[in-house]
Amino acid sequence: MKQDAAASIDFAKNGGVVPVVAQDYASRRVLMVAYMNREAFEETVATGRACYYSRSRRRLWRKGEESGNFQLVREIRIDCDDDTILLMVEQKGDGAACHLGYESDYFRMLEDGQWKTVEPRKVDPAKYGPGYGHHEKSGKSGH
Amino acid sequence: MKQDAAASIDFAKNGGVVPVVAQDYASRRVLMVAYMNREAFEETVATGRACYYSRSRRRLWRKGEESGNFQLVREIRIDCDDDTILLMVEQKGDGAACHLGYESDYFRMLEDGQWKTVEPRKVDPAKYGPGYGHHEKSGKSGH
Repeated sequence: MKQDAAASIDFAKNGGVVPVVAQDYASRRVLMVAYMNREAFEETVATGRACYYSRSRRRLWRKGEESGNFQLVREIRIDCDDDTILLMVEQKGDGAACHLGYESDYFRMLEDGQWKTVEPRKVDPAKYGPGYGHHEKSGKSGH
Repeated sequence: MKQDAAASIDFAKNGGVVPVVAQDYASRRVLMVAYMNREAFEETVATGRACYYSRSRRRLWRKGEESGNFQLVREIRIDCDDDTILLMVEQKGDGAACHLGYESDYFRMLEDGQWKTVEPRKVDPAKYGPGYGHHEKSGKSGH
């Protein structure tokens, strides 16, 4: 049955991955956008924890594997084109989905033509150790 | 000033476009994911209405241009990597962001290994005319 659900996702359209929106189940905040390949999708379904695919590191990215900020998956939805996924999650750990310590990656808003930080930081990510960084941009392990 | 805001978006990372999440400002529903190139972003900022870039049609896609289901932009947010955008919008017209007549593109949920429709349709999209279809998948005009 899980095979059927994965088979209907159009991974081919975007080079083997689909964009995935993670939204907080309680607060309805949009936390982040990441990507899944088929393997990541199937692991997410099997484990109930969000597993993404890091395009920069070219491997599965088990969200929270270093920080403890994992995501329990409450709902998995698919869009009308079968090419994006919406996860409704409980953000665990320190409640910070963002590797910079914010609840959401979207802590900056356009105001007067400038991106301004409009959210408080929830945690100092230095607590996760010196090797903790960003999977997509820096290529370091972490997030 | 608007030039600065666009210049800091990492369009190059993903072939000239960034994924954009549109979320309903009032209900907090995630409505859709689409893409913007720099021109679409700048038009959105200038007009206050969501303008995306259709990858299949290779042109700007002024959301609601045929159906009247346009989106008034209340907030524009950017993620920590500068490579995705979050729009907080008021969904106008019939309140249906989805070209199939649903409020949200995410009207199907994974249940028992199958994608099941869990939302009511708000409008029959046939009302928008026989040429109305989906910009990304069919290449037809519309949405």
